[in-house]
Amino acid sequence: MSFFDDLAARIAETDSVVSVGLDADMDRLPEFLADADLPRWAFNRRIIDATHEHAACYKPNAAFYEDTDGWRSLRETVAYAHGKGVPVLLDAKRADIGNTARKYADVLDEVDAITVNPYLGHDSLRPFLDRAEKGVFVLCRTSNPGGSDLQGLELASGERLYERVAGLAALWNEHDNVGLVVGATAPEELGEVRESVPEIPFLVPGVGAQGGDAEAAVEHGLTEWDGRDVGLVNSSRGIIFAGEEVGRNVVSGASGGRETSEDAYFEAVGEAAKNLQKQLNRHR
Amino acid sequence: MSFFDDLAARIAETDSVVSVGLDADMDRLPEFLADADLPRWAFNRRIIDATHEHAACYKPNAAFYEDTDGWRSLRETVAYAHGKGVPVLLDAKRADIGNTARKYADVLDEVDAITVNPYLGHDSLRPFLDRAEKGVFVLCRTSNPGGSDLQGLELASGERLYERVAGLAALWNEHDNVGLVVGATAPEELGEVRESVPEIPFLVPGVGAQGGDAEAAVEHGLTEWDGRDVGLVNSSRGIIFAGEEVGRNVVSGASGGRETSEDAYFEAVGEAAKNLQKQLNRHR
Repeated sequence: MSFFDDLAARIAETDSVVSVGLDADMDRLPEFLADADLPRWAFNRRIIDATHEHAACYKPNAAFYEDTDGWRSLRETVAYAHGKGVPVLLDAKRADIGNTARKYADVLDEVDAITVNPYLGHDSLRPFLDRAEKGVFVLCRTSNPGGSDLQGLELASGERLYERVAGLAALWNEHDNVGLVVGATAPEELGEVRESVPEIPFLVPGVGAQGGDAEAAVEHGLTEWDGRDVGLVNSSRGIIFAGEEVGRNVVSGASGGRETSEDAYFEAVGEAAKNLQKQLNRHR
Repeated sequence: MSFFDDLAARIAETDSVVSVGLDADMDRLPEFLADADLPRWAFNRRIIDATHEHAACYKPNAAFYEDTDGWRSLRETVAYAHGKGVPVLLDAKRADIGNTARKYADVLDEVDAITVNPYLGHDSLRPFLDRAEKGVFVLCRTSNPGGSDLQGLELASGERLYERVAGLAALWNEHDNVGLVVGATAPEELGEVRESVPEIPFLVPGVGAQGGDAEAAVEHGLTEWDGRDVGLVNSSRGIIFAGEEVGRNVVSGASGGRETSEDAYFEAVGEAAKNLQKQLNRHR
């Protein structure tokens, strides 16, 4: 089985293309959760408990696991997600050369897929691409304002740089394990990239907190894999911090005070995942 | 004091522009060292003991510290290097957006400089650039074969992509803390980039194991900083694994057997750093 086989099966089973971004920024937790002194892996477990029925995959971002306990937290989180049958895509945006890229690719022993940065070219991505059973999502057109600084540059050939990257990724896709990261904040470009590479699954970020276009994300982000949908639409903060308000209201007694603010927080997280699933399914 | 002030002072003091790459690949150690079961931080300490008099800076690559003990090993290594008065540049090649880039930039609390990848544009690098006292080396033209896949593309303006990146980096250099990574394996391009940005210090990799041009690395890599040289020429494997052969000979008794193979290994490491220092200084 390859990553995209697994993902297509998971999407069919859950009827969801939602990627839940596990950007466990513990400094951002509301006071009532910070007081509970939840370790990061325990926070992630509760997120997973609340959302797994609506999650096609989990996408932890490596930036939130770069400290002395980070790797262990990440491992715990991956094991817990796998226990619930959900694949894990590490959003690492890695790229390096030769020897070093091989070392970075070791993380694919633990997770099912990874995001990588194309600026260093084909050989820098080979150690990832050569893991045929794993998914490799190449950054193409990102959802941030400065995304166009390089990606939008016009080449002598008339293409934009991100279009060339899409073409190169298709060329590098010897093992049918390449995906592309294309943001929902530039829906027209999303459509153009889809036209140029009809068969490559996209990971579409930028739908939640960044305000991207959900319809375009579904219309262009998904493709067909053995007759089933494959592709991912991600929301991170829009899901995992969705309980801030409702949790605070419980603290102040506004909801009657029967449940704890912690419970209310994670219920709201589950609702947010479910709502995104529904919203996206309306366009499938 | 800014990173480049510190670095220029260090270069003047040691009369060396050598960056020692701490790519602590413990799987690559020769048997006699693997048998000694040296933890990664202890290996790095012995490398630092052997090379610090010839080191303008240490450059650990983050890929070799991504495991459960990695962050702790890296911290120990940074502390030990700082104890010897040597600045530390983390070769992380990071890039991400908004919230996440801010999280990655937290590592600048621990190290003095970092390498970053420009593919996601200006806002993705801001959290790094805004740390005015730290050095931020932007990947421009890398030393690997696939470096040209994207970096060498011709833009509609007639420039190559790496030339545009050099120009953008100069534009983003509001705090005089930007450097560029330009490989020694493409000496002509190194010269072209130097002409276009005369005042930005370069980190030039590819001189050791990758066989790059040492003369071009010095001629184009360095620039002037308050009347002193600033810039770095890196070797990783060429220094830290330089003791493989000589260490093996000690084991077989060829050198008389008075010193241990471990001592011989690290002596050879020190010699390799010293020789690179001399070789580079001939061109300064």
